[in-house]
Amino acid sequence: MKLMRYGDRHGAKTPCVLDPQGQARDVSSIVEDFGPRTLSPELMERLRAADLSALPVVQGGRVAPPTAQPFNIWCVGLNYSDHAAEAGMAIPDEPILFNKATGTYCGPFDDILHAPKMTKLDWEVELGIVIGKPALNIDKAEAMDHVAGFVVVNDISERAWQLERAGQWVKGKSFPNFCPTGPWLVTPDELGDVQSLDMWLEVNGARKQSGSTSTMIFDVATIVSYMSEFARLEPGDLICTGTPPGVGAGMDPQEWLSVGDEVRLGIDGLGAQKQRVVAL
Amino acid sequence: MKLMRYGDRHGAKTPCVLDPQGQARDVSSIVEDFGPRTLSPELMERLRAADLSALPVVQGGRVAPPTAQPFNIWCVGLNYSDHAAEAGMAIPDEPILFNKATGTYCGPFDDILHAPKMTKLDWEVELGIVIGKPALNIDKAEAMDHVAGFVVVNDISERAWQLERAGQWVKGKSFPNFCPTGPWLVTPDELGDVQSLDMWLEVNGARKQSGSTSTMIFDVATIVSYMSEFARLEPGDLICTGTPPGVGAGMDPQEWLSVGDEVRLGIDGLGAQKQRVVAL
Repeated sequence: MKLMRYGDRHGAKTPCVLDPQGQARDVSSIVEDFGPRTLSPELMERLRAADLSALPVVQGGRVAPPTAQPFNIWCVGLNYSDHAAEAGMAIPDEPILFNKATGTYCGPFDDILHAPKMTKLDWEVELGIVIGKPALNIDKAEAMDHVAGFVVVNDISERAWQLERAGQWVKGKSFPNFCPTGPWLVTPDELGDVQSLDMWLEVNGARKQSGSTSTMIFDVATIVSYMSEFARLEPGDLICTGTPPGVGAGMDPQEWLSVGDEVRLGIDGLGAQKQRVVAL
Repeated sequence: MKLMRYGDRHGAKTPCVLDPQGQARDVSSIVEDFGPRTLSPELMERLRAADLSALPVVQGGRVAPPTAQPFNIWCVGLNYSDHAAEAGMAIPDEPILFNKATGTYCGPFDDILHAPKMTKLDWEVELGIVIGKPALNIDKAEAMDHVAGFVVVNDISERAWQLERAGQWVKGKSFPNFCPTGPWLVTPDELGDVQSLDMWLEVNGARKQSGSTSTMIFDVATIVSYMSEFARLEPGDLICTGTPPGVGAGMDPQEWLSVGDEVRLGIDGLGAQKQRVVAL
Protein backbone atom coordinates (compact mmCIF):
# COMPACT_ATOMS: atom_id res chain seq x y z
CA MET A 1 0.00 0.00 0.00
CA LYS A 2 1.23 3.51 -0.87
CA LEU A 3 0.03 6.48 1.18
CA MET A 4 0.41 10.11 0.16
CA ARG A 5 -1.06 13.52 0.90
CA TYR A 6 -1.92 16.56 -1.16
CA GLY A 7 -2.29 20.07 0.19
CA ASP A 8 -0.63 23.43 0.72
CA ARG A 9 1.87 23.88 3.52
CA HIS A 10 -0.42 25.68 5.93
CA GLY A 11 -3.79 24.34 4.82
CA ALA A 12 -5.65 21.08 5.33
CA LYS A 13 -4.21 18.00 3.65
CA THR A 14 -6.05 15.31 1.70
CA PRO A 15 -4.87 11.82 2.75
CA CYS A 16 -4.80 9.41 -0.18
CA VAL A 17 -4.06 5.77 -0.95
CA LEU A 18 -2.82 4.86 -4.43
CA ASP A 19 -5.08 2.42 -6.27
CA PRO A 20 -3.79 -0.42 -8.51
CA GLN A 21 -3.67 2.02 -11.44
CA GLY A 22 -1.53 4.47 -9.42
CA GLN A 23 -4.33 6.98 -9.00
CA ALA A 24 -4.55 8.81 -5.65
CA ARG A 25 -7.85 8.01 -3.95
CA ASP A 26 -9.11 10.39 -1.25
CA VAL A 27 -9.47 8.44 2.03
CA SER A 28 -10.50 11.41 4.18
CA SER A 29 -13.83 9.66 4.72
CA ILE A 30 -11.86 6.97 6.60
CA VAL A 31 -9.29 9.08 8.46
CA GLU A 32 -8.92 12.82 8.90
CA ASP A 33 -5.19 12.71 8.19
CA PHE A 34 -2.14 10.44 8.41
CA GLY A 35 0.11 11.44 11.31
CA PRO A 36 1.21 11.08 14.94
CA ARG A 37 -2.39 11.13 16.19
CA THR A 38 -3.78 8.57 13.76
CA LEU A 39 -1.09 6.15 12.56
CA SER A 40 -1.65 2.66 13.98
CA PRO A 41 -1.83 -0.94 12.80
CA GLU A 42 -5.63 -0.64 13.07
CA LEU A 43 -5.69 2.33 10.68
CA MET A 44 -3.60 0.39 8.18
CA GLU A 45 -6.08 -2.49 8.36
CA ARG A 46 -9.00 -0.13 7.73
CA LEU A 47 -7.23 1.39 4.74
CA ARG A 48 -6.42 -2.05 3.35
CA ALA A 49 -10.05 -3.03 3.64
CA ALA A 50 -11.34 0.06 1.82
CA ASP A 51 -12.89 -0.17 -1.64
CA LEU A 52 -10.63 2.39 -3.27
CA SER A 53 -12.57 2.29 -6.55
CA ALA A 54 -15.52 3.88 -4.75
CA LEU A 55 -13.47 6.81 -3.45
CA PRO A 56 -12.79 10.12 -5.24
CA VAL A 57 -9.67 10.45 -7.40
CA VAL A 58 -7.52 13.41 -6.37
CA GLN A 59 -6.21 15.26 -9.40
CA GLY A 60 -3.14 16.88 -7.94
CA GLY A 61 -1.78 20.01 -6.31
CA ARG A 62 1.22 20.31 -4.02
CA VAL A 63 2.51 16.96 -2.82
CA ALA A 64 2.80 17.20 0.97
CA PRO A 65 4.94 14.83 3.03
CA PRO A 66 3.05 11.54 3.32
CA THR A 67 2.30 11.95 7.05
CA ALA A 68 1.76 15.02 9.21
CA GLN A 69 4.65 16.72 11.01
CA PRO A 70 6.26 14.25 13.43
CA PHE A 71 7.19 15.01 17.02
CA ASN A 72 10.68 13.63 16.42
CA ILE A 73 12.96 13.40 13.41
CA TRP A 74 15.81 11.05 14.28
CA CYS A 75 18.91 10.41 12.22
CA VAL A 76 21.46 7.63 12.27
CA GLY A 77 24.92 8.94 11.48
CA LEU A 78 27.59 7.24 9.39
CA ASN A 79 25.47 4.16 8.72
CA TYR A 80 27.10 3.24 5.39
CA SER A 81 30.70 2.11 5.64
CA ASP A 82 31.73 3.89 2.43
CA HIS A 83 30.20 7.17 3.62
CA ALA A 84 32.03 6.93 6.95
CA ALA A 85 35.24 6.50 4.98
CA GLU A 86 34.60 9.54 2.76
CA ALA A 87 33.73 11.61 5.86
CA GLY A 88 37.06 10.60 7.39
CA MET A 89 35.32 9.05 10.40
CA ALA A 90 35.59 5.59 11.94
CA ILE A 91 32.88 2.99 11.40
CA PRO A 92 30.77 3.22 14.56
CA ASP A 93 30.49 0.26 16.95
CA GLU A 94 26.84 1.09 17.57
CA PRO A 95 24.40 3.50 15.89
CA ILE A 96 25.15 7.22 16.27
CA LEU A 97 21.89 9.11 16.88
CA PHE A 98 21.11 12.76 16.39
CA ASN A 99 18.06 14.86 15.61
CA LYS A 100 16.74 17.34 13.10
CA ALA A 101 14.30 20.03 14.27
CA THR A 102 10.79 19.10 13.15
CA GLY A 103 10.44 22.45 11.35
CA THR A 104 12.69 20.93 8.66
CA TYR A 105 9.88 18.64 7.51
CA CYS A 106 8.53 19.48 4.04
CA GLY A 107 7.23 18.00 0.81
CA PRO A 108 9.38 16.13 -1.73
CA PHE A 109 9.18 18.91 -4.33
CA ASP A 110 9.44 21.93 -2.00
CA ASP A 111 12.35 24.35 -2.40
CA ILE A 112 15.63 23.99 -0.54
CA LEU A 113 16.23 27.33 1.21
CA HIS A 114 19.68 28.89 0.95
CA ALA A 115 20.16 31.46 3.70
CA PRO A 116 22.79 34.18 3.24
CA LYS A 117 24.99 32.78 6.03
CA MET A 118 25.19 29.29 4.52
CA THR A 119 28.50 28.27 2.93
CA LYS A 120 28.47 24.44 2.83
CA LEU A 121 24.98 23.27 1.88
CA ASP A 122 24.97 19.52 1.22
CA TRP A 123 22.66 16.67 0.17
CA GLU A 124 22.08 13.11 1.49
CA VAL A 125 19.65 10.60 -0.01
CA GLU A 126 18.32 8.40 2.81
CA LEU A 127 15.84 5.66 3.53
CA GLY A 128 13.37 6.96 6.11
CA ILE A 129 11.47 4.75 8.57
CA VAL A 130 8.05 5.96 9.74
CA ILE A 131 6.99 4.52 13.10
CA GLY A 132 3.44 3.16 13.24
CA LYS A 133 3.13 1.93 16.83
CA PRO A 134 4.87 3.03 20.06
CA ALA A 135 8.17 1.25 20.66
CA LEU A 136 10.02 1.06 23.99
CA ASN A 137 12.52 -1.70 24.75
CA ILE A 138 11.48 -3.95 21.89
CA ASP A 139 13.45 -6.87 20.48
CA LYS A 140 14.84 -6.90 16.98
CA ALA A 141 12.46 -9.75 16.11
CA GLU A 142 9.40 -7.58 16.79
CA ALA A 143 10.83 -4.32 15.44
CA MET A 144 9.13 -4.45 12.05
CA ASP A 145 5.69 -4.65 13.74
CA HIS A 146 6.31 -1.06 14.86
CA VAL A 147 7.10 0.28 11.38
CA ALA A 148 4.26 1.88 9.38
CA GLY A 149 6.37 2.16 6.24
CA PHE A 150 9.27 3.70 4.40
CA VAL A 151 9.94 7.01 2.64
CA VAL A 152 12.62 8.81 0.65
CA VAL A 153 14.31 11.62 2.61
CA ASN A 154 16.84 14.23 1.56
CA ASP A 155 18.69 14.83 4.84
CA ILE A 156 20.02 18.27 3.96
CA SER A 157 22.92 19.69 5.99
CA GLU A 158 24.79 22.94 6.33
CA ARG A 159 28.19 21.36 7.03
CA ALA A 160 29.83 24.47 8.47
CA TRP A 161 27.06 24.73 11.08
CA GLN A 162 27.15 20.98 11.71
CA LEU A 163 30.89 20.58 12.17
CA GLU A 164 32.49 23.98 12.82
CA ARG A 165 30.08 25.65 15.27
CA ALA A 166 30.63 24.13 18.71
CA GLY A 167 29.52 20.63 19.08
CA GLN A 168 26.43 18.61 18.37
CA TRP A 169 25.33 17.98 14.78
CA VAL A 170 21.70 19.14 15.18
CA LYS A 171 22.82 22.74 14.62
CA GLY A 172 23.58 22.05 10.96
CA LYS A 173 20.63 19.74 10.32
CA SER A 174 17.69 21.89 11.40
CA PHE A 175 17.03 24.78 9.01
CA PRO A 176 13.50 25.00 7.52
CA ASN A 177 12.97 22.63 4.58
CA PHE A 178 16.07 20.57 5.41
CA CYS A 179 13.96 17.38 5.38
CA PRO A 180 12.04 16.82 2.11
CA THR A 181 10.05 13.63 2.68
CA GLY A 182 8.04 11.45 0.29
CA PRO A 183 6.32 11.40 -2.13
CA TRP A 184 4.89 8.15 -0.71
CA LEU A 185 4.89 6.14 2.47
CA VAL A 186 5.17 2.53 1.26
CA THR A 187 4.16 -0.25 3.64
CA PRO A 188 6.67 -3.06 4.34
CA ASP A 189 4.53 -5.76 2.69
CA GLU A 190 4.34 -3.79 -0.57
CA LEU A 191 8.01 -2.79 -0.58
CA GLY A 192 9.53 -6.24 -0.19
CA ASP A 193 13.12 -6.54 1.08
CA VAL A 194 13.98 -3.12 2.47
CA GLN A 195 17.65 -4.09 2.67
CA SER A 196 18.18 -4.42 -1.09
CA LEU A 197 16.97 -1.13 -2.56
CA ASP A 198 19.02 0.95 -4.98
CA MET A 199 19.23 4.65 -4.14
CA TRP A 200 20.56 7.60 -6.12
CA LEU A 201 20.93 11.38 -6.13
CA GLU A 202 21.75 13.85 -8.91
CA VAL A 203 22.63 17.55 -8.86
CA ASN A 204 21.87 19.40 -12.10
CA GLY A 205 21.61 16.07 -13.89
CA ALA A 206 25.01 14.77 -12.75
CA ARG A 207 24.96 11.60 -10.65
CA LYS A 208 26.46 12.22 -7.20
CA GLN A 209 25.25 9.32 -5.07
CA SER A 210 24.71 5.70 -6.08
CA GLY A 211 24.17 3.18 -3.36
CA SER A 212 22.06 0.41 -1.95
CA THR A 213 20.42 -0.22 1.38
CA SER A 214 22.24 -3.58 1.27
CA THR A 215 25.41 -1.81 2.49
CA MET A 216 23.89 -0.28 5.62
CA ILE A 217 25.97 -1.09 8.71
CA PHE A 218 22.92 -1.32 11.00
CA ASP A 219 19.76 -2.56 9.31
CA VAL A 220 16.22 -1.29 9.85
CA ALA A 221 15.22 -3.84 12.50
CA THR A 222 18.46 -3.28 14.42
CA ILE A 223 17.99 0.50 14.37
CA VAL A 224 14.40 0.41 15.63
CA SER A 225 15.20 -2.08 18.38
CA TYR A 226 18.38 -0.24 19.39
CA MET A 227 16.71 3.17 19.57
CA SER A 228 13.84 1.82 21.66
CA GLU A 229 16.33 1.20 24.46
CA PHE A 230 16.98 4.94 24.82
CA ALA A 231 13.66 6.56 23.92
CA ARG A 232 10.05 5.66 23.24
CA LEU A 233 9.49 5.88 19.50
CA GLU A 234 6.08 7.33 18.74
CA PRO A 235 3.70 6.93 15.79
CA GLY A 236 4.70 9.35 13.06
CA ASP A 237 8.33 9.61 14.21
CA LEU A 238 10.69 9.68 11.25
CA ILE A 239 14.06 7.91 11.40
CA CYS A 240 16.55 8.79 8.66
CA THR A 241 18.88 5.83 8.38
CA GLY A 242 22.05 7.34 6.94
CA THR A 243 23.41 8.02 3.51
CA PRO A 244 25.64 6.14 1.03
CA PRO A 245 28.80 7.71 -0.45
CA GLY A 246 28.77 10.75 -2.70
CA VAL A 247 27.87 13.71 -0.49
CA GLY A 248 29.43 17.06 -1.31
CA ALA A 249 31.55 17.09 1.85
CA GLY A 250 33.23 13.86 0.72
CA MET A 251 34.32 15.11 -2.72
CA ASP A 252 37.80 16.35 -3.60
CA PRO A 253 37.46 19.26 -3.99
CA GLN A 254 34.32 19.55 -1.88
CA GLU A 255 31.10 20.60 -3.62
CA TRP A 256 28.21 22.59 -2.16
CA LEU A 257 24.73 23.48 -3.35
CA SER A 258 24.18 26.96 -4.77
CA VAL A 259 21.09 29.00 -5.54
CA GLY A 260 19.54 27.71 -8.77
CA ASP A 261 20.78 24.13 -8.43
CA GLU A 262 18.32 21.29 -9.00
CA VAL A 263 18.51 18.15 -6.87
CA ARG A 264 16.83 14.89 -7.86
CA LEU A 265 16.90 11.72 -5.76
CA GLY A 266 15.07 8.46 -5.29
CA ILE A 267 14.99 4.95 -3.91
CA ASP A 268 13.66 1.85 -5.69
CA GLY A 269 9.97 1.41 -4.95
CA LEU A 270 9.71 4.58 -2.87
CA GLY A 271 9.50 7.17 -5.65
CA ALA A 272 11.60 10.21 -6.51
CA GLN A 273 11.98 13.80 -5.31
CA LYS A 274 13.05 17.02 -7.01
CA GLN A 275 14.04 20.26 -5.29
CA ARG A 276 15.27 23.63 -6.49
CA VAL A 277 17.72 25.61 -4.32
CA VAL A 278 16.36 29.13 -3.81
CA ALA A 279 17.65 32.18 -1.95
CA LEU A 280 15.89 32.83 1.34
CA MET B 1 0.37 35.79 34.51
CA LYS B 2 0.81 32.14 35.52
CA LEU B 3 -0.54 29.39 33.26
CA MET B 4 -0.95 25.76 34.29
CA ARG B 5 -2.85 22.65 33.28
CA TYR B 6 -4.53 19.83 35.14
CA GLY B 7 -5.28 16.42 33.69
CA ASP B 8 -4.16 12.82 33.39
CA ARG B 9 -1.38 11.92 31.03
CA HIS B 10 -3.53 10.50 28.25
CA GLY B 11 -6.76 12.42 28.83
CA ALA B 12 -7.92 15.95 28.07
CA LYS B 13 -6.26 18.75 29.99
CA THR B 14 -7.88 21.74 31.66
CA PRO B 15 -5.97 24.95 30.87
CA CYS B 16 -5.94 27.36 33.81
CA VAL B 17 -4.71 30.82 34.74
CA LEU B 18 -3.90 31.55 38.39
CA ASP B 19 -5.97 34.37 39.88
CA PRO B 20 -4.57 36.96 42.34
CA GLN B 21 -5.33 34.58 45.22
CA GLY B 22 -3.37 31.79 43.52
CA GLN B 23 -6.46 29.78 42.62
CA ALA B 24 -6.47 27.98 39.27
CA ARG B 25 -9.27 29.31 37.06
CA ASP B 26 -10.47 27.15 34.16
CA VAL B 27 -9.97 29.10 30.91
CA SER B 28 -11.14 26.31 28.57
CA SER B 29 -14.00 28.60 27.53
CA ILE B 30 -11.32 30.89 26.04
CA VAL B 31 -8.90 28.35 24.58
CA GLU B 32 -9.10 24.58 24.15
CA ASP B 33 -5.57 24.06 25.44
CA PHE B 34 -2.17 25.77 25.72
CA GLY B 35 0.29 24.36 23.21
CA PRO B 36 1.98 24.48 19.80
CA ARG B 37 -1.33 25.03 18.01
CA THR B 38 -2.61 27.83 20.22
CA LEU B 39 0.24 29.77 21.85
CA SER B 40 0.51 33.28 20.42
CA PRO B 41 0.79 36.86 21.61
CA GLU B 42 -2.91 37.23 20.75
CA LEU B 43 -3.87 34.35 23.04
CA MET B 44 -1.89 35.93 25.87
CA GLU B 45 -3.79 39.18 25.35
CA ARG B 46 -7.13 37.38 25.47
CA LEU B 47 -6.14 35.61 28.69
CA ARG B 48 -4.97 38.86 30.25
CA ALA B 49 -8.30 40.49 29.40
CA ALA B 50 -10.37 37.69 30.94
CA ASP B 51 -12.39 38.22 34.12
CA LEU B 52 -10.88 35.32 36.05
CA SER B 53 -13.28 35.79 38.98
CA ALA B 54 -16.13 34.72 36.71
CA LEU B 55 -14.43 31.46 35.70
CA PRO B 56 -14.63 28.10 37.55
CA VAL B 57 -12.00 27.27 40.18
CA VAL B 58 -10.25 23.97 39.44
CA GLN B 59 -9.77 21.96 42.62
CA GLY B 60 -6.83 19.83 41.60
CA GLY B 61 -5.79 16.51 40.20
CA ARG B 62 -2.58 15.66 38.40
CA VAL B 63 -0.55 18.70 37.45
CA ALA B 64 0.28 18.36 33.76
CA PRO B 65 3.10 20.30 32.08
CA PRO B 66 1.87 23.87 31.53
CA THR B 67 1.67 23.53 27.75
CA ALA B 68 0.94 20.57 25.47
CA GLN B 69 3.76 18.38 24.13
CA PRO B 70 6.12 20.51 22.03
CA PHE B 71 7.46 19.55 18.62
CA ASN B 72 11.00 20.31 19.79
CA ILE B 73 12.78 20.19 23.13
CA TRP B 74 16.09 21.99 22.76
CA CYS B 75 18.89 22.11 25.29
CA VAL B 76 21.85 24.41 25.67
CA GLY B 77 24.87 22.52 26.97
CA LEU B 78 27.45 23.77 29.48
CA ASN B 79 25.81 27.17 29.86
CA TYR B 80 27.03 27.83 33.41
CA SER B 81 30.77 28.32 33.73
CA ASP B 82 30.97 26.44 37.05
CA HIS B 83 29.09 23.45 35.60
CA ALA B 84 31.44 23.32 32.60
CA ALA B 85 34.33 23.21 35.06
CA GLU B 86 32.82 20.36 37.11
CA ALA B 87 32.11 18.44 33.88
CA GLY B 88 35.76 18.85 32.90
CA MET B 89 34.82 20.64 29.68
CA ALA B 90 35.91 23.98 28.25
CA ILE B 91 33.63 27.01 28.39
CA PRO B 92 32.05 27.11 24.93
CA ASP B 93 32.65 30.03 22.58
CA GLU B 94 29.05 29.84 21.37
CA PRO B 95 26.00 27.92 22.61
CA ILE B 96 26.15 24.12 22.30
CA LEU B 97 22.76 22.83 21.16
CA PHE B 98 21.28 19.37 21.48
CA ASN B 99 17.82 17.84 21.74
CA LYS B 100 15.72 15.66 23.96
CA ALA B 101 13.07 13.42 22.39
CA THR B 102 9.65 14.97 22.97
CA GLY B 103 8.45 11.75 24.64
CA THR B 104 10.47 12.89 27.67
CA TYR B 105 7.96 15.65 28.38
CA CYS B 106 5.95 15.10 31.59
CA GLY B 107 4.43 16.82 34.60
CA PRO B 108 6.44 18.32 37.48
CA PHE B 109 5.35 15.64 39.98
CA ASP B 110 5.45 12.60 37.68
CA ASP B 111 7.79 9.72 38.50
CA ILE B 112 11.34 9.48 37.16
CA LEU B 113 11.61 6.07 35.48
CA HIS B 114 14.68 3.94 36.27
CA ALA B 115 15.12 1.29 33.59
CA PRO B 116 17.14 -1.85 34.43
CA LYS B 117 19.96 -0.89 32.05
CA MET B 118 20.51 2.55 33.62
CA THR B 119 23.66 2.99 35.71
CA LYS B 120 24.28 6.77 35.86
CA LEU B 121 20.94 8.53 36.26
CA ASP B 122 21.48 12.24 36.97
CA TRP B 123 19.57 15.46 37.67
CA GLU B 124 19.81 19.05 36.34
CA VAL B 125 17.65 21.96 37.48
CA GLU B 126 17.19 24.31 34.52
CA LEU B 127 15.37 27.44 33.45
CA GLY B 128 13.13 26.56 30.49
CA ILE B 129 12.07 29.03 27.80
CA VAL B 130 8.71 28.41 26.08
CA ILE B 131 8.46 29.97 22.62
CA GLY B 132 5.26 31.94 21.95
CA LYS B 133 5.75 33.15 18.38
CA PRO B 134 7.74 31.72 15.44
CA ALA B 135 11.37 32.90 15.39
CA LEU B 136 13.72 32.70 12.39
CA ASN B 137 16.74 34.98 12.06
CA ILE B 138 15.68 37.42 14.75
CA ASP B 139 17.88 39.97 16.50
CA LYS B 140 18.68 39.81 20.18
CA ALA B 141 16.73 43.02 20.71
CA GLU B 142 13.48 41.42 19.53
CA ALA B 143 14.09 37.97 21.03
CA MET B 144 11.93 38.46 24.12
CA ASP B 145 8.89 39.22 21.92
CA HIS B 146 9.04 35.57 20.85
CA VAL B 147 9.02 34.16 24.39
CA ALA B 148 5.69 33.09 25.91
CA GLY B 149 7.19 32.51 29.32
CA PHE B 150 9.45 30.50 31.58
CA VAL B 151 9.24 27.14 33.38
CA VAL B 152 11.23 24.93 35.74
CA VAL B 153 12.70 21.86 34.03
CA ASN B 154 14.54 18.86 35.42
CA ASP B 155 16.77 17.90 32.47
CA ILE B 156 17.33 14.28 33.50
CA SER B 157 20.22 12.36 31.94
CA GLU B 158 21.52 8.83 31.84
CA ARG B 159 25.21 9.79 31.71
CA ALA B 160 26.48 6.41 30.50
CA TRP B 161 24.17 6.62 27.49
CA GLN B 162 25.00 10.28 26.94
CA LEU B 163 28.78 10.02 27.07
CA GLU B 164 29.84 6.39 26.63
CA ARG B 165 27.60 5.13 23.82
CA ALA B 166 28.93 6.48 20.52
CA GLY B 167 28.54 10.13 20.02
CA GLN B 168 25.76 12.65 20.27
CA TRP B 169 24.22 13.51 23.66
CA VAL B 170 20.56 12.99 22.67
CA LYS B 171 20.94 9.26 23.35
CA GLY B 172 21.23 9.86 27.10
CA LYS B 173 18.65 12.64 27.29
CA SER B 174 15.60 11.04 25.73
CA PHE B 175 14.07 8.34 27.94
CA PRO B 176 10.38 8.74 28.84
CA ASN B 177 9.80 11.22 31.72
CA PHE B 178 13.30 12.70 31.41
CA CYS B 179 11.80 16.21 31.15
CA PRO B 180 9.52 17.13 34.09
CA THR B 181 8.22 20.62 33.26
CA GLY B 182 6.27 23.14 35.32
CA PRO B 183 4.22 23.53 37.44
CA TRP B 184 3.62 26.93 35.86
CA LEU B 185 4.45 28.88 32.76
CA VAL B 186 5.16 32.40 34.05
CA THR B 187 5.04 35.28 31.60
CA PRO B 188 8.07 37.60 31.33
CA ASP B 189 6.21 40.65 32.67
CA GLU B 190 5.18 38.78 35.81
CA LEU B 191 8.56 37.17 36.40
CA GLY B 192 10.70 40.30 36.30
CA ASP B 193 14.45 39.96 35.62
CA VAL B 194 14.92 36.42 34.33
CA GLN B 195 18.68 36.74 34.73
CA SER B 196 18.65 37.02 38.52
CA LEU B 197 16.68 34.01 39.74
CA ASP B 198 17.93 31.63 42.42
CA MET B 199 17.62 27.94 41.56
CA TRP B 200 18.09 24.84 43.70
CA LEU B 201 17.79 21.06 43.71
CA GLU B 202 17.73 18.51 46.56
CA VAL B 203 17.95 14.72 46.58
CA ASN B 204 16.38 13.06 49.63
CA GLY B 205 16.42 16.41 51.40
CA ALA B 206 20.14 17.10 50.85
CA ARG B 207 20.99 20.19 48.81
CA LYS B 208 22.86 19.29 45.62
CA GLN B 209 22.52 22.31 43.35
CA SER B 210 22.46 25.98 44.33
CA GLY B 211 22.79 28.54 41.58
CA SER B 212 21.45 31.61 39.90
CA THR B 213 20.50 32.46 36.37
CA SER B 214 22.83 35.45 36.81
CA THR B 215 25.81 33.14 36.09
CA MET B 216 24.55 31.88 32.74
CA ILE B 217 27.20 32.26 30.02
CA PHE B 218 24.64 33.00 27.27
CA ASP B 219 21.51 34.79 28.48
CA VAL B 220 17.93 34.14 27.36
CA ALA B 221 17.81 36.78 24.63
CA THR B 222 21.18 35.64 23.23
CA ILE B 223 20.05 32.01 23.15
CA VAL B 224 16.77 32.70 21.34
CA SER B 225 18.41 34.98 18.78
CA TYR B 226 21.35 32.61 18.26
CA MET B 227 19.17 29.54 17.78
CA SER B 228 16.95 31.33 15.29
CA GLU B 229 19.92 31.47 12.91
CA PHE B 230 19.95 27.67 12.61
CA ALA B 231 16.29 26.67 12.94
CA ARG B 232 12.84 28.18 13.07
CA LEU B 233 11.67 28.12 16.68
CA GLU B 234 7.97 27.29 16.86
CA PRO B 235 5.25 28.12 19.40
CA GLY B 236 5.39 25.61 22.23
CA ASP B 237 9.05 24.72 21.66
CA LEU B 238 10.88 24.28 24.97
CA ILE B 239 14.48 25.43 25.36
CA CYS B 240 16.31 24.17 28.45
CA THR B 241 19.05 26.69 29.14
CA GLY B 242 21.65 24.66 31.04
CA THR B 243 22.32 23.81 34.64
CA PRO B 244 24.43 25.29 37.45
CA PRO B 245 27.00 23.20 39.37
CA GLY B 246 26.08 20.25 41.56
CA VAL B 247 25.04 17.48 39.19
CA GLY B 248 25.85 13.91 40.21
CA ALA B 249 28.39 13.48 37.42
CA GLY B 250 30.42 16.37 38.84
CA MET B 251 30.71 15.02 42.41
CA ASP B 252 33.75 13.20 43.83
CA PRO B 253 32.84 10.40 44.09
CA GLN B 254 30.08 10.63 41.50
CA GLU B 255 26.49 10.18 42.72
CA TRP B 256 23.57 8.70 40.79
CA LEU B 257 19.85 8.44 41.39
CA SER B 258 18.47 5.13 42.67
CA VAL B 259 14.99 3.67 42.89
CA GLY B 260 13.20 5.25 45.86
CA ASP B 261 15.08 8.57 45.77
CA GLU B 262 13.09 11.79 45.99
CA VAL B 263 14.16 14.82 43.96
CA ARG B 264 12.92 18.34 44.71
CA LEU B 265 13.88 21.41 42.70
CA GLY B 266 12.74 24.93 42.00
CA ILE B 267 13.48 28.38 40.66
CA ASP B 268 12.45 31.69 42.25
CA GLY B 269 9.05 32.76 40.96
CA LEU B 270 8.57 29.64 38.81
CA GLY B 271 7.50 27.18 41.50
CA ALA B 272 8.86 23.83 42.62
CA GLN B 273 8.81 20.20 41.44
CA LYS B 274 9.02 16.88 43.26
CA GLN B 275 9.70 13.49 41.67
CA ARG B 276 10.12 9.98 43.00
CA VAL B 277 12.49 7.58 41.21
CA VAL B 278 10.64 4.34 40.45
CA ALA B 279 11.68 1.10 38.79
CA LEU B 280 10.38 0.70 35.24
